[in-house]
Amino acid sequence: MRENTVHTTLQQLADLTHANLRGDPATPIHNVAGIQHARTGEIALLAATRYGRFLPTTAASALVVPTVFDPALTNLPLLIAHDPAAAFETIAAHLCPPAPAPVPAIHPTAIVADDATLASGVAIGAHCVVEAGASIGPNTVLRPLAYVGTAARIGAHCLLYPHTTVLDRCVLGDRVTLHSGVVIGADGYGYEQDNGVHVKLPQRGIVEVGDDVEIGANTTVDRARFGRTRIGSGTKIDNLVQVAHNVVIGDHTLVIAQAGIAGSSTLGHHAVVAAQAGLMGHLQIGDGAIVAAQAGVNKDIPPGLAVLGSPAQDIRKERRAMVAHQQLPDLVARVRKLSKLTEALAEKVARLEADAEDNPNAS
Amino acid sequence: MRENTVHTTLQQLADLTHANLRGDPATPIHNVAGIQHARTGEIALLAATRYGRFLPTTAASALVVPTVFDPALTNLPLLIAHDPAAAFETIAAHLCPPAPAPVPAIHPTAIVADDATLASGVAIGAHCVVEAGASIGPNTVLRPLAYVGTAARIGAHCLLYPHTTVLDRCVLGDRVTLHSGVVIGADGYGYEQDNGVHVKLPQRGIVEVGDDVEIGANTTVDRARFGRTRIGSGTKIDNLVQVAHNVVIGDHTLVIAQAGIAGSSTLGHHAVVAAQAGLMGHLQIGDGAIVAAQAGVNKDIPPGLAVLGSPAQDIRKERRAMVAHQQLPDLVARVRKLSKLTEALAEKVARLEADAEDNPNAS
Amino acid sequence: MRENTVHTTLQQLADLTHANLRGDPATPIHNVAGIQHARTGEIALLAATRYGRFLPTTAASALVVPTVFDPALTNLPLLIAHDPAAAFETIAAHLCPPAPAPVPAIHPTAIVADDATLASGVAIGAHCVVEAGASIGPNTVLRPLAYVGTAARIGAHCLLYPHTTVLDRCVLGDRVTLHSGVVIGADGYGYEQDNGVHVKLPQRGIVEVGDDVEIGANTTVDRARFGRTRIGSGTKIDNLVQVAHNVVIGDHTLVIAQAGIAGSSTLGHHAVVAAQAGLMGHLQIGDGAIVAAQAGVNKDIPPGLAVLGSPAQDIRKERRAMVAHQQLPDLVARVRKLSKLTEALAEKVARLEADAEDNPNAS
Repeated sequence: MRENTVHTTLQQLADLTHANLRGDPATPIHNVAGIQHARTGEIALLAATRYGRFLPTTAASALVVPTVFDPALTNLPLLIAHDPAAAFETIAAHLCPPAPAPVPAIHPTAIVADDATLASGVAIGAHCVVEAGASIGPNTVLRPLAYVGTAARIGAHCLLYPHTTVLDRCVLGDRVTLHSGVVIGADGYGYEQDNGVHVKLPQRGIVEVGDDVEIGANTTVDRARFGRTRIGSGTKIDNLVQVAHNVVIGDHTLVIAQAGIAGSSTLGHHAVVAAQAGLMGHLQIGDGAIVAAQAGVNKDIPPGLAVLGSPAQDIRKERRAMVAHQQLPDLVARVRKLSKLTEALAEKVARLEADAEDNPNAS
Repeated sequence: MRENTVHTTLQQLADLTHANLRGDPATPIHNVAGIQHARTGEIALLAATRYGRFLPTTAASALVVPTVFDPALTNLPLLIAHDPAAAFETIAAHLCPPAPAPVPAIHPTAIVADDATLASGVAIGAHCVVEAGASIGPNTVLRPLAYVGTAARIGAHCLLYPHTTVLDRCVLGDRVTLHSGVVIGADGYGYEQDNGVHVKLPQRGIVEVGDDVEIGANTTVDRARFGRTRIGSGTKIDNLVQVAHNVVIGDHTLVIAQAGIAGSSTLGHHAVVAAQAGLMGHLQIGDGAIVAAQAGVNKDIPPGLAVLGSPAQDIRKERRAMVAHQQLPDLVARVRKLSKLTEALAEKVARLEADAEDNPNAS
Repeated sequence: MRENTVHTTLQQLADLTHANLRGDPATPIHNVAGIQHARTGEIALLAATRYGRFLPTTAASALVVPTVFDPALTNLPLLIAHDPAAAFETIAAHLCPPAPAPVPAIHPTAIVADDATLASGVAIGAHCVVEAGASIGPNTVLRPLAYVGTAARIGAHCLLYPHTTVLDRCVLGDRVTLHSGVVIGADGYGYEQDNGVHVKLPQRGIVEVGDDVEIGANTTVDRARFGRTRIGSGTKIDNLVQVAHNVVIGDHTLVIAQAGIAGSSTLGHHAVVAAQAGLMGHLQIGDGAIVAAQAGVNKDIPPGLAVLGSPAQDIRKERRAMVAHQQLPDLVARVRKLSKLTEALAEKVARLEADAEDNPNAS
């Protein structure tokens, strides 16, 4: 198997990055990779010390290293760069150019409602569907098989990947990226019990996404029961995340893969919800708060506090509790031993007391 | 950003809901929202006491309140209603009407097999695919980009949102709603080890979904190895849930976001599996049982029991264990102190015993 | 509701499987099912003893049993087979035949770029999209609504179910199955903080999937920042799994539903990551290592070790810790009792010491 990449030589890459070359300038390079998993014909970056352990075994054909790197450590051809990370990024951009941006046009197989509004520069891919009353802002790209519902409004410079879904009346700001499989605006999960039957509560609100938001593959953001589920500007959401109805997430917040946020919870700005964490409904999570991976949050979090555990508590306390948990069997054994010792002592003391009673004070 | 909603005045909404109006009847209202996040031009509901804390800061232009509400608490225009929740629902239905139901028709871009059976009133959206031998019941709606596999059978009055997938031979009852990204009938995860190679076991069964079932966005329900994976009537499943092969879920059960149920487990009726909970395979979960959020269930649950924790146990026990877990570092410190105290006592007792030995009973 | 299955008699199934028949040979059978949930007209397998408990209540019309089965245990018609599992599989294959393989052809509604390369025997379903420079190997099947991005390379005999997405430049080996909703090659989740703003790091790498890999519905595998995210040959991934950028999974490894693997972690061959487990980034998970369900792994795992818990530790230790956790309230009570006992003892000892002081040694 071979990837579709550009073929070049180490000399060409040295010229491209203004790096010093050590070794054979004709070394063929066609791809970048991590040092641990690189193959012949690939160049790897060795900037952080912790990757040095892969130096003896790497199959890379060359390395990008900082000027402080001791060249005696390897026989591999080297590009010695003042800013190795920037040089490596430049090489990667050269060898792995992104697919060309689609031409602004509506593919003949796309179904766009007559009264939908398309701004200039919009590209709509094959088999897309844009429903009645929807509007798409300037230079926004819908990759093939994207769906935009009735009266939905998409801002400028957005990118909707294949198989994305934006349902009726939902609103995206500018420069929003939705990765494949994202569902914006499915009904919130809300029912009323009537004699053992779950009766659906109409979900009449929308989802509103701010500017510069990126939402990962197969993530779901439900529409509000009333009003808005809102994702603040600059917020980045990873894959397979669940954002329930009426959740409000502030600006520049991070929500990492497989986390879930239950209905009506409000998160501040610059907060972090780590992978697989779960937040109960109707909570207030403060600005800059951090919810660690797999935490289960069942009460409000003040601004700036980091929490861990299920139920979650202050991360410093929970870390100690987790250490103690791992040593629990030792603690149980210790208490058992202590019990026996105490019982034995109690017997001895009883005997001493009995003796004392038998020999009362002579004075 | 503005949503596509109806514009009205507070007077019109008072007339609509037969509520008493306080304040300016000309107040413009174009949307409903929660009191915490409402904006100018929006009306909010203040029915539950706990939302009162948002009264001083709300940006809502008016409130719907109960007759018992003390109007001195705010200067905002009010609609005072006997049943404020019902009045608010009426207002929301008026201001945020759902998109009109699609006309019963087959979109010209839909690919429907010649021998598929479509009942009267069926609407099939753009770019849908309905395979050979499939049947779709009366008044069922397939939104654009829905897929119905070979010989699948969909009941009456169902609603399949964009990008839903119902695979070969699977069966949906009546009034079933599948939200976007739902996959019904992917192969179960079943392999046999043969000398370190995982050999696929054919997944020959189907998924059968009862009546009045709603399944949330990007949820997956796998087909059975043999026979049926079954979702009982009236059961409601949230987003991103995994239901593995041969699982049987009873009627009117709730399965909340990101929960997972492993192969061949059987759930009773009116059970609840809360968010991010996981159930091992081959379990029997009784009627009315409750699995709390993030629980990990590894044994059967009798009817009506609520469980929590991983591994899960009776919720009352686990809650006490969770409290104790959070205080574990204190307990460790306490035991350490107790150890020292006991050791010191042991020394003292040893000394007392030695003294007693030195001064034997004179009698 | 009835499935689309073949109708037959018990005699026909006895002939098909060379089993001995007991009971009415005319018994109509049209489906297979598990013994617990079988219905009239269905035949069930009773091979494992633990399913014997369903014998009194099963609604199956007949059973497949081993030769050692005591026929006095039931009045149901029986097929007595030397290898009952094989006989049952044969019956299931007969009664529930898979949908016929699609004819090798390009559906007229599929959009295939002029410069895409399609090998012989390729079938491309309705509304598929294959972008420029993509190549599809011999006999590979794209079910309807599948998407293959620019310059992606799909091997031979692959099967892409409806609504699958393979993004630009990603590579699949031979005999790879992607279930519906799978997203291969969405951008990895990588940002750099710049004054409180999360700036996207270009994700320039690809996803490379080996041979004989199966990936479950709605699972996401992100492209690498540089180089490759790699899934080894023979590896099987279940539904709703998250595989982050630059993860490398070895051959013949199992990753079960809703598990998540964070960026740059490397898993060996024949490892197992069980359901809902989470792995932090940059870890090394050894060959044959086992991560139990719901575990949270935050450090490397040596080959062959099984871990459990969050944070995960050796499964044998964690099992004891989990037992102790469930008994924590008892332990707390015990320590409290011990404290009181020790205090009482301390008082008594103090009194004995005081007495001893009052009655100094007369010698």
